[in-house]
Amino acid sequence: MVRVAVDAMGGDFGAEPIVRGAIEAYRATEFEPILAGDPKAIEALLPADLRGKIRIEEATDTIAMDDAATDALKRRNSSIFKAVELVANKQADAVVSAGHSGATMSLATLKIGRLPKVSRPAIATLMPTKNGKHTLVLDVGANVDSEPKHLFQSAIMGHAYAKTIMNIDDPKVALLANGEEDTKGDKLVKETFQLLKATRDRSFNFAGNAEGGDVFGGEFDVIVCDGFVGNVLLKTSEGLAHAVIDMIKTNVKKSPIAILGAALMKPAFKSLKKAMDYDEYGGAPLIGIDGAAIISHGKSTPKAIKNACLQAIRFVESGVNPQIVSNLNKYSDRGVA
Amino acid sequence: MVRVAVDAMGGDFGAEPIVRGAIEAYRATEFEPILAGDPKAIEALLPADLRGKIRIEEATDTIAMDDAATDALKRRNSSIFKAVELVANKQADAVVSAGHSGATMSLATLKIGRLPKVSRPAIATLMPTKNGKHTLVLDVGANVDSEPKHLFQSAIMGHAYAKTIMNIDDPKVALLANGEEDTKGDKLVKETFQLLKATRDRSFNFAGNAEGGDVFGGEFDVIVCDGFVGNVLLKTSEGLAHAVIDMIKTNVKKSPIAILGAALMKPAFKSLKKAMDYDEYGGAPLIGIDGAAIISHGKSTPKAIKNACLQAIRFVESGVNPQIVSNLNKYSDRGVA
Repeated sequence: MVRVAVDAMGGDFGAEPIVRGAIEAYRATEFEPILAGDPKAIEALLPADLRGKIRIEEATDTIAMDDAATDALKRRNSSIFKAVELVANKQADAVVSAGHSGATMSLATLKIGRLPKVSRPAIATLMPTKNGKHTLVLDVGANVDSEPKHLFQSAIMGHAYAKTIMNIDDPKVALLANGEEDTKGDKLVKETFQLLKATRDRSFNFAGNAEGGDVFGGEFDVIVCDGFVGNVLLKTSEGLAHAVIDMIKTNVKKSPIAILGAALMKPAFKSLKKAMDYDEYGGAPLIGIDGAAIISHGKSTPKAIKNACLQAIRFVESGVNPQIVSNLNKYSDRGVA
Repeated sequence: MVRVAVDAMGGDFGAEPIVRGAIEAYRATEFEPILAGDPKAIEALLPADLRGKIRIEEATDTIAMDDAATDALKRRNSSIFKAVELVANKQADAVVSAGHSGATMSLATLKIGRLPKVSRPAIATLMPTKNGKHTLVLDVGANVDSEPKHLFQSAIMGHAYAKTIMNIDDPKVALLANGEEDTKGDKLVKETFQLLKATRDRSFNFAGNAEGGDVFGGEFDVIVCDGFVGNVLLKTSEGLAHAVIDMIKTNVKKSPIAILGAALMKPAFKSLKKAMDYDEYGGAPLIGIDGAAIISHGKSTPKAIKNACLQAIRFVESGVNPQIVSNLNKYSDRGVA
């Protein structure tokens, strides 16, 4: 049975939404949750029938959102340290945290360790497309100042994720550029393009360059970029989505007829909202570590944490990690892995 | 009177929308349009009362969208070459083109020339914000692989544009990064941040780092980035906006009640559409050349071309170029200009 260590304390709203989410996941599927944090606070949140049945890993410290990520390794009693340690010690298969994402990332990378041949783990995120599918974008913030081999490895990792977890037979993997032509890109992208062309001989579908707008088009399954660029892409999308909603609300409020119209459109907006809804994914996987880590939003709802747990279970069961290792091994002669 | 050379042939739909747009601008305000292109085609599109009154600059060639930008300098009879040449020869003050943007950019930079102390002109674009204002983002595609001094100069140019053309008294200028903290950024952004801190002593409001989402927040007037990143930001925004509209339409079509709702919401959607409407701006200025060039979309409507002409006139009248030169001169001791 998959064992998921959950950082019960790290989120913006304390233990409550985290513990509730883990319980919802536990009611929905078979797995072993291990809740890291203050035993008293956690016990108090457990329903009577689960008290004593769910393992709690005591942690007396919590890393706050404005603490420095560099301190994470020293805060050995923090809930995120304890949760990651369980995976590092093979007492758990995956970790879920809604806490300090920088701390989660460095702890997971340093204590759990990277997969063989992976230089830098990447954070991946699923973006909704207009045809109801998803595009996996990576890296969205783990690494800046990437080198071509890092983007190359992200492509291999994204391909494996799409194949094993998104169940796409022959995932189309593209490189994010400032135009679709083969010659587009900055220095990093142009050099990575040359590396990725090599995959075409080795049963990997490199689909060429994609533009920012292609993220929502559904033509590509995986889009690869440097973490600085991916962060801008992600934040821009979130910002625009919020701005559009705000603008619609402001305009609707000005007219009673529009208010009625909005009420009638509710079901139509609902499926849109669901497509855009962060809670549906629950978090972003850190890909490239020798284990599984799902990084959730500090403001995660119980639903988000539940889905993060389910995602962690799928990650472990999918066999994505062995697939990454075996694919990277195919390119060891190229100096890219 | 401001003289605007218009590339009448370069757009995706031939001379018609371009000539019509230029005429609309001519009816709306006082300026001298000069239409570069095939005289017969242009004459045929002019209303009877304007024939013989509007100057036509003969051009026998048109650069197609899929031609190489590098050929632009050799195609001396193309409509964009002729239009740019008018500015270079001081027979016009500004050029507007909906043709091959790479060709327009290189021709404008090489033939009209850069402003003193400007290393690389930048393309700027206005993004709508949720509070009904605009953020000027630059560079959105003229230059990739920027150095810190290029971003520094973009900040100076964006500041001058916001002050003189957007009429903002003390424009807030930010640097695009992967987080708002001063320490965020890739190598380029971190180094540019240090350069921009210097402006704080010299009457320039450097507001620190901004995230992708801040583009639509309205807190900053100018956001500066490398052209690769800016292109991703722009294309991602356009792609998401289209995807949202597509999703709403698809969902609305499924239900007669939602169709009615959408009809009632029309006025509310209209102001949103206007805020997002490319035609309202008409094009993106190339800032940093010793003249004015507005780069319009290949699919520009007459309305877009009209607004591009009006924007070109404002650009010339605003005195933005002398302001850029005088501000860059303040920093000549820093090795950034």
